[in-house]
Amino acid sequence: MSASVFERFLSTPEMIAVFDEVAIVQGMLDFEAALARAQAAEGLIPAAAAQVIAGACRAERLDVNAIIAASGRAGSLAIPLVKKLTELVARDDADAAGYVHWGSTSQDLIDTTMVLATRRALGLIDASLATLTTTLLALAERHRDAPILGRTLMQPAQVISVGFKLVGWIAPLVRGRARLRVAGQAALQLQMGGAVGTLSVMGEKAPGVARHMADELSLELPPGAWHTQRDSWVSLGSQVGVLCGSLGKIAKDISLLAQGEIAELAEPSGGGRGGSSAMPHKRNPVASMLALAAATRTPHHVAALLAAMPQEHERGLGNWQAELAEWPGLFTSAHGALTALCEASAGLQVDTDRMRANIDALQGLVFAEGVSMLFAQSIGKARAHALLESLSQRVVAERRHLREVTLEAVAADSSLAAKFAPDEITSVFDADATARRAGALAKPQLAALAATHESIERDKP
Amino acid sequence: MSASVFERFLSTPEMIAVFDEVAIVQGMLDFEAALARAQAAEGLIPAAAAQVIAGACRAERLDVNAIIAASGRAGSLAIPLVKKLTELVARDDADAAGYVHWGSTSQDLIDTTMVLATRRALGLIDASLATLTTTLLALAERHRDAPILGRTLMQPAQVISVGFKLVGWIAPLVRGRARLRVAGQAALQLQMGGAVGTLSVMGEKAPGVARHMADELSLELPPGAWHTQRDSWVSLGSQVGVLCGSLGKIAKDISLLAQGEIAELAEPSGGGRGGSSAMPHKRNPVASMLALAAATRTPHHVAALLAAMPQEHERGLGNWQAELAEWPGLFTSAHGALTALCEASAGLQVDTDRMRANIDALQGLVFAEGVSMLFAQSIGKARAHALLESLSQRVVAERRHLREVTLEAVAADSSLAAKFAPDEITSVFDADATARRAGALAKPQLAALAATHESIERDKP
Amino acid sequence: MSASVFERFLSTPEMIAVFDEVAIVQGMLDFEAALARAQAAEGLIPAAAAQVIAGACRAERLDVNAIIAASGRAGSLAIPLVKKLTELVARDDADAAGYVHWGSTSQDLIDTTMVLATRRALGLIDASLATLTTTLLALAERHRDAPILGRTLMQPAQVISVGFKLVGWIAPLVRGRARLRVAGQAALQLQMGGAVGTLSVMGEKAPGVARHMADELSLELPPGAWHTQRDSWVSLGSQVGVLCGSLGKIAKDISLLAQGEIAELAEPSGGGRGGSSAMPHKRNPVASMLALAAATRTPHHVAALLAAMPQEHERGLGNWQAELAEWPGLFTSAHGALTALCEASAGLQVDTDRMRANIDALQGLVFAEGVSMLFAQSIGKARAHALLESLSQRVVAERRHLREVTLEAVAADSSLAAKFAPDEITSVFDADATARRAGALAKPQLAALAATHESIERDKP
Amino acid sequence: MSASVFERFLSTPEMIAVFDEVAIVQGMLDFEAALARAQAAEGLIPAAAAQVIAGACRAERLDVNAIIAASGRAGSLAIPLVKKLTELVARDDADAAGYVHWGSTSQDLIDTTMVLATRRALGLIDASLATLTTTLLALAERHRDAPILGRTLMQPAQVISVGFKLVGWIAPLVRGRARLRVAGQAALQLQMGGAVGTLSVMGEKAPGVARHMADELSLELPPGAWHTQRDSWVSLGSQVGVLCGSLGKIAKDISLLAQGEIAELAEPSGGGRGGSSAMPHKRNPVASMLALAAATRTPHHVAALLAAMPQEHERGLGNWQAELAEWPGLFTSAHGALTALCEASAGLQVDTDRMRANIDALQGLVFAEGVSMLFAQSIGKARAHALLESLSQRVVAERRHLREVTLEAVAADSSLAAKFAPDEITSVFDADATARRAGALAKPQLAALAATHESIERDKP
Repeated sequence: MSASVFERFLSTPEMIAVFDEVAIVQGMLDFEAALARAQAAEGLIPAAAAQVIAGACRAERLDVNAIIAASGRAGSLAIPLVKKLTELVARDDADAAGYVHWGSTSQDLIDTTMVLATRRALGLIDASLATLTTTLLALAERHRDAPILGRTLMQPAQVISVGFKLVGWIAPLVRGRARLRVAGQAALQLQMGGAVGTLSVMGEKAPGVARHMADELSLELPPGAWHTQRDSWVSLGSQVGVLCGSLGKIAKDISLLAQGEIAELAEPSGGGRGGSSAMPHKRNPVASMLALAAATRTPHHVAALLAAMPQEHERGLGNWQAELAEWPGLFTSAHGALTALCEASAGLQVDTDRMRANIDALQGLVFAEGVSMLFAQSIGKARAHALLESLSQRVVAERRHLREVTLEAVAADSSLAAKFAPDEITSVFDADATARRAGALAKPQLAALAATHESIERDKP
Repeated sequence: MSASVFERFLSTPEMIAVFDEVAIVQGMLDFEAALARAQAAEGLIPAAAAQVIAGACRAERLDVNAIIAASGRAGSLAIPLVKKLTELVARDDADAAGYVHWGSTSQDLIDTTMVLATRRALGLIDASLATLTTTLLALAERHRDAPILGRTLMQPAQVISVGFKLVGWIAPLVRGRARLRVAGQAALQLQMGGAVGTLSVMGEKAPGVARHMADELSLELPPGAWHTQRDSWVSLGSQVGVLCGSLGKIAKDISLLAQGEIAELAEPSGGGRGGSSAMPHKRNPVASMLALAAATRTPHHVAALLAAMPQEHERGLGNWQAELAEWPGLFTSAHGALTALCEASAGLQVDTDRMRANIDALQGLVFAEGVSMLFAQSIGKARAHALLESLSQRVVAERRHLREVTLEAVAADSSLAAKFAPDEITSVFDADATARRAGALAKPQLAALAATHESIERDKP
Repeated sequence: MSASVFERFLSTPEMIAVFDEVAIVQGMLDFEAALARAQAAEGLIPAAAAQVIAGACRAERLDVNAIIAASGRAGSLAIPLVKKLTELVARDDADAAGYVHWGSTSQDLIDTTMVLATRRALGLIDASLATLTTTLLALAERHRDAPILGRTLMQPAQVISVGFKLVGWIAPLVRGRARLRVAGQAALQLQMGGAVGTLSVMGEKAPGVARHMADELSLELPPGAWHTQRDSWVSLGSQVGVLCGSLGKIAKDISLLAQGEIAELAEPSGGGRGGSSAMPHKRNPVASMLALAAATRTPHHVAALLAAMPQEHERGLGNWQAELAEWPGLFTSAHGALTALCEASAGLQVDTDRMRANIDALQGLVFAEGVSMLFAQSIGKARAHALLESLSQRVVAERRHLREVTLEAVAADSSLAAKFAPDEITSVFDADATARRAGALAKPQLAALAATHESIERDKP
Repeated sequence: MSASVFERFLSTPEMIAVFDEVAIVQGMLDFEAALARAQAAEGLIPAAAAQVIAGACRAERLDVNAIIAASGRAGSLAIPLVKKLTELVARDDADAAGYVHWGSTSQDLIDTTMVLATRRALGLIDASLATLTTTLLALAERHRDAPILGRTLMQPAQVISVGFKLVGWIAPLVRGRARLRVAGQAALQLQMGGAVGTLSVMGEKAPGVARHMADELSLELPPGAWHTQRDSWVSLGSQVGVLCGSLGKIAKDISLLAQGEIAELAEPSGGGRGGSSAMPHKRNPVASMLALAAATRTPHHVAALLAAMPQEHERGLGNWQAELAEWPGLFTSAHGALTALCEASAGLQVDTDRMRANIDALQGLVFAEGVSMLFAQSIGKARAHALLESLSQRVVAERRHLREVTLEAVAADSSLAAKFAPDEITSVFDADATARRAGALAKPQLAALAATHESIERDKP
């Protein structure tokens, strides 16, 4: 397997397989086969030669490890692969061997191979994003109006609803999936330029060869080579980085809500997940851990891609190679995070009682703004704010509920008492009603997200 | 001016002014004015109060430095600004003071202010991109067929043409401008959510207020607050990073071609540009320097934005603040680079004679692939490649031209001599013909880029 | 002030002043004065000229804004400064003007200026680190044995003590301060090489001039110029990054412990700190916010310095300029974080009752490992682990305390009952005793840290 | 092999093997063996059990792939390894199985394993640094006084010598090796803290166990666990990043000097190195490519380590895992770069004739400062600078040598002619003399570097 032991851990076997050495070598062979067939179709090489070459283009027929071992000295994976493939073809047909990799350059071969692998990688991410979105939409519907604390700057702030909170998780996923589709469409292109981008060896047949190859590999045909024009490619990479940021936000929230002292959410356990080697009672939020690890790593991988962009002249020195090496990590991280969150969401334990208890434990302070706004209507914002500040201090000092303290204060002040009935004041402290209002805001947004989600599903490439 | 002495140096006064403290404070006041007017329009506050508030919302009426000095302790620029504005309004109308910033939160104010500033920043970048594209398109047309070395891995490779090379500079600019437009449209949205995103203070009037504000500030109205959903915003930021990568590529090429020993291009001099305090004869490629500095710095700024994405719950702690601090640097870098390259391109000295001389100095070696391909038609690829390798070695050892060495070898080998007339061999070494073929490839690409460029110009937002 | 509005917010006025444009220009003038005096001392220029030049080297005599404005076009701050200084000197003494900046190069001037500023910056950081360490050592002593939950993977794990926990905050600060001293000593060197590092203009007098300058500016004299050898310099910068990571860890812990639902720590309030514009009851952990922002940003600034290291030949193009621009941000971030944490630590509210209550609320589960280890002595580790797993599940299901459930299970199992007296079992659940054991581990570590701290204080440079 | 196909390419088999899955698993088993032995020595577990456990701790006895496959779900590599090891031990001795991993935690196991691997990694780097330094010192001695252009801002500036230039390559290597030794000594420590750092399970025997383990594994014994105190560790990591920056600088210079049009240096060819699949004549600077790729990538890996530092409480969530995954890449990149540069330096072709020819081709302009300084002695700096600027323009316009133009100008100006004999002027243009002066500056620096180099060699740990 082509990933370090501590990277595999944070990814999925499916995604690791996409960038696996065998898969990459097979991708390169697919390119060579398509090239030979395209050149035969254009009459550049004999059809028989193309057939022999295409027949040899199977990874199991080559010594993949030897090719990789030789790549270091050669400074390119392409050179030893072409050499070995040529030898293999030569065993069947000495003439055909002369047509292997004809007129192409290493970077054509490797870039196109990466495009093919990336198409598969995007397919995996797209599918996982669909699953996660579906799961979270259902969760949001189920608990749409359940009260939960809204928290800001890591402090309890005001009451919202679970559905409302989840809109903030789902919307970036739906948008992110759409953006990935657009970025993918622009980036998944054939690379075919020959030594300096002119495909000069193939003369006038070059455009036809490129067209045939794009057809066979089902790739877009760009107007020219993009050897040192990485903008579309890196835009796609940075979109994967943005996605990991959005997944990290979800994981951050889950891990905070799953803290033992808060306990509003719990990741599913069982099946070897999240146990502790030292503490039998512990249930570690392993999915959040994976997504947080991805969100910690991917910004730097994106930065590496961006830093590698100023490539020299017609083909760069060192920066292209750096980009190649950094590219797969984005996808392995993202898919590890996504898959973990899919599983965690599907079994997520939502403790709405505890959410309510956590609200109650704050003794009404999270409704202070509401009370302040109510009073402001009659005594002005400044006075109302000052009053609530002093009432809040009493709540903390006397460990009482803001509702009681407020009712007492109103009763003691005849001008306030004249304006505000106890019922009106009490109603401000109604967590359920507050949550329902948040749920009502969430409702159309969830509907819109579901609709977009479905339309993205339908438009699958 | 709000930029460090070594950042100003790398940017433009126009872009620094966009994120200047006075501009930011004025943006915040524009938000407050729009909020008050929108609330008046919805009947939430008296029209008279809104008028007084809006009248006070002028940066010159406030002590900007005192507000900024107080922001450190408060942990927010919004708190001291709202306080000072309230005091100012109170001097005119004590009642109106109670309606300042009503129902909004610090982040609404600051995010929207950053959106307003960023709209201006994107306008500057869009305009400079237009100029640079126009200049480079003209340059590419002028020298479309002029021969120049194509270079790969920092070694001379084969002959291309100047126009062909410039396609590789221009295409990412045209694509980048289009991507920035799309990303900008998604990101330039009103932020308006109140404490936890529900705008609960304004009750049922909240949507109307938000709509009015979006109208007045000419911003998109998002379906909800995006306090901790930074994906659209960071996608825009990473596009600026991608743009700087593309500019860095141009600058890398210019700086390499401007080396004294290559001297194919020179940045314009005069007017205090690029002199050396120690060496009177030097002309430093200052524009390239600025663009390379931007390309060196911006990947890390993008990474910081991505790293700041996993924001806690309804509003984050530290990460949002980090994002704010990193944001302007992207735009100041990008505009510094763009403006420098605009100026450099406008006065770029293209020495086509030197380009030709540099080709000649390589003694025909850059045509080796062409000869090899010619011979391969009759003696096979492997033998042709080996032959050219040995001829190339003779070129180096004997310091002769590959054309002569080849003609000699053909003359000495009767089977080759029978197939290849000297004229045919000589024609492979024709730099002008090779460049014309590259120019012919460039022609439709340049036309397409020009057409897209014009259509982007027409669609100006 | 030379920092963007959202950077100033996260720093201190003292540190911003260090890299302020006036301070930088004055530093440059200090260099020029020292150069002239050194050259006079070596007989390279007339003593009278040196006196006039040194007399002119005062920032208030120059138009700093004009110099900065001109730096963009020149591609260097040095060129316009030298020009203006020469004009100023010429007004007093036309001959002396000819000796301004004699034999030096822009980078000598600017690098040395940055060294001088950085020395002041390190002084501020060193002093703040001393204060923070002292405060935290006192806090650790005061609450050395107070029980607090140890938490792993964001879940309650086992009981430790406050003093033990604080060792983990303090040790990296003490080590970090020592490392900064070492790195500073290596990096704070005179830069003096002339155009290409050979100081050729000054001939045999060059070494003497450099020695004089180093003396006057109290800087180390390096064996040669380090124009494109940035390793010592960037090592210092990365140490500032490491420090911010250590501060971020403290801030992460504080912010987690200050969550409303945990409430074991609170940052001090009052004096305009941490209020909320929308919620009167809130106390935001503003110091943590600043330190977290610094920890979010500085990794990328360090990366930019590292990325700028491969500078071309004798003086780089773009990368040196990028380094200059990124440098000050490391120090402004670090000092903002440090100062905030100093203030927060000094007034930190430590609620040991709440710590105990949070332990109690977990119903003994955090002692499960202890019980398991006790039982393992007689029934083996595997059986003991399994038993505790099942008892822990009962605790959760029945909402009872693990102590009771365990006592019950032991009573019901005659073989266990024979071996473990109820008192022995009960003692495992003693949070105070557990904390005391952690405190005993902390004691020598705190003593050692205090001793190192004092020795670092004494060795002040 | 545990590295992606495009990372292996950029590293060495030796370094990849260090972090290979089998090596990591063996390292973990070494830890478990040492733990069991240490506990037996302290009387915590039976000696027989320790013997069985230690006997089972061999990677070839475990199914490494199955362990890694299970690690994803478990969220830790330690859990499945301990499980499989326990099963293996149980087959021999059911009782002994109960003592496997007793009282330790996953992170103790994995951190210590990484320390062991990193010690080997540092050994490889130290050895390669020694080789590279030795080679470059010899090269610098050999060509100490050979003239070469000093280049600044990618423009020819003045003449230096090869030895002088190489001081700038070597000094950072010598310093870097010393810094790595220091950082390694601080970072290569046993990790042993148990669940929350207190090693509570082992009671009073804990310190003894830790001491025994440190002895057996030949690691430093830290004062306490460093689970979430990563400052020493990350300081080491950033030093590897700094080293790659220094290697990148060397590679940048080589690749620039190896450009076909400059051709002063060439990397060795042959043995499959640096060929081109399309162009038989090309010799690509493959070693520079590898080192530049490393310098492009490692800044971001360092940034990831720094970003992962603020780890939560007693053991972090996601950030530790991110650090683990990013760590090996630093070393694989660095060793790939180092090894490539070792080989390239050993066979580096230094074309001193071409260096001289490149100086000559600049028609004396690189001596303009010297002439200016000469004239300044009699006509003042300002007039001399202006005169040389105009003479330089004539050089360019008339394509003549500055020497001739200057002699002409002096002859035409009686006051200059009176002061400056033609010989004196001509001597300024003596490249050899200039280079000798640079060589004289290099001489003591090279001697000092050689001495430090030898002393580092002797102090091998």
